[in-house]
Amino acid sequence: MGVPGLPEIVPGDDLSALIAEATTGLLEPGDVLAVTSKIVSKAEGRLVAAEDREDAITSQTVRVVASRTAPDGHTTRIVENPLGLVMAAAGVDASNVPDGFVLLLPEDPDASARAIAEAVRARSGCAVGVVISDTFGRPWRAGQTDLAIGAAGIHVVDDLRGGVDDNGRDLRVTAAATADEIAAAADLVKGKTSRMPVAIVRGLEGVVGPLELPGARSIVRLGPADMFRVGSEEAWREGYEAGLRAHDPAAE
Amino acid sequence: MGVPGLPEIVPGDDLSALIAEATTGLLEPGDVLAVTSKIVSKAEGRLVAAEDREDAITSQTVRVVASRTAPDGHTTRIVENPLGLVMAAAGVDASNVPDGFVLLLPEDPDASARAIAEAVRARSGCAVGVVISDTFGRPWRAGQTDLAIGAAGIHVVDDLRGGVDDNGRDLRVTAAATADEIAAAADLVKGKTSRMPVAIVRGLEGVVGPLELPGARSIVRLGPADMFRVGSEEAWREGYEAGLRAHDPAAE
Repeated sequence: MGVPGLPEIVPGDDLSALIAEATTGLLEPGDVLAVTSKIVSKAEGRLVAAEDREDAITSQTVRVVASRTAPDGHTTRIVENPLGLVMAAAGVDASNVPDGFVLLLPEDPDASARAIAEAVRARSGCAVGVVISDTFGRPWRAGQTDLAIGAAGIHVVDDLRGGVDDNGRDLRVTAAATADEIAAAADLVKGKTSRMPVAIVRGLEGVVGPLELPGARSIVRLGPADMFRVGSEEAWREGYEAGLRAHDPAAE
Repeated sequence: MGVPGLPEIVPGDDLSALIAEATTGLLEPGDVLAVTSKIVSKAEGRLVAAEDREDAITSQTVRVVASRTAPDGHTTRIVENPLGLVMAAAGVDASNVPDGFVLLLPEDPDASARAIAEAVRARSGCAVGVVISDTFGRPWRAGQTDLAIGAAGIHVVDDLRGGVDDNGRDLRVTAAATADEIAAAADLVKGKTSRMPVAIVRGLEGVVGPLELPGARSIVRLGPADMFRVGSEEAWREGYEAGLRAHDPAAE
């Protein structure tokens, strides 16, 4: 369910206090609050002047993962940003911000989530978790889903590895990315253009835990664990051309 | 919420009728049923004898996207399967099935979803949607989330492109993958080892629509639209080695 009553967030707002206030009387133990990163960024003063959005993206780029220029000249860059997140435009946001400005992601979303969780736990007396969400595209699939870029007070991955299935076989690869599923569930009620940047996901008693649990940063899998590291730009282009040849463009 | 009371599904079961029966009295207009692909496969006789799971994976492989062999000799293959889904082990499932057998994905999950939606709509008189879900790993992130491999009676992507944000700017890349977010939300209640293969996601009146809407196949983005086509295996390996060098393994 959405959380009504939050004001428009501006730089310097005490977002933790505002969320604790807005959720007063609404929370139960086992609730997880999903907070859109945009309001966290705004409160934390991440709205920065930028002559050009492309320059801002470049400043937030650790590595270009993929890039494409559309016939209208608009270039989409999928890059790894300083948080280790692989995102379109490095997560730099130019929608719903004043002209000449862009909104950067929070500098440490796990710390932001923890501050909110502490304030809300103190105010409500309930063991609740917090996820900070942002919108991601996905390779090989159309559309975007929300994922967790920050988290506090929850088991971000429900790791069943080492467990066995009902027939006694290893569940060797089963580890549900609970934090990401919470972010996705919350996006179903938050919507994109409505003013509902915080949602409550209820019934997750087994997911909520101490504030000291690892945050969303622990979900990031890069370096040696990354099976999808495209090599050089040349290699990527070669693969792209092969893709063009292998698939019928008319089927697009 | 989970749907209790479904029996263990066996080949030849009329799954649509069983789900319509189990959900009698539980449904409201705007509900979406999320059905785990495993029970669809079982009902449709996709349990096939396989001497070796690796051979079964090969038979379901259109293209190897990535491959890695662990120190214990276990090879993980991420492949494109005949449904156009990029999945670990091509979606071939060896958990919770008898020895010497594997479970293949449904042959046409959108058709399976439609059959279930028709039966449930007829029985309940409610306009409900159906998603058939399966579990996917993700590049660059640990853990898995459920995604929609079949769908009927819902807008699988909530396409806001062409719309504008609150400041009048183009929402050029905003298209929520609603079907996938529904599958993820449902996984939060279904769990992996419990016998709760069907869940109801409520409150999606704006998402449910005619049975003739495009299915989950329309979410698949391959060929020219695929920005993440790794070139040759050599190119992939080169990128992998660069990844090893660029990231500190101790940080894993």
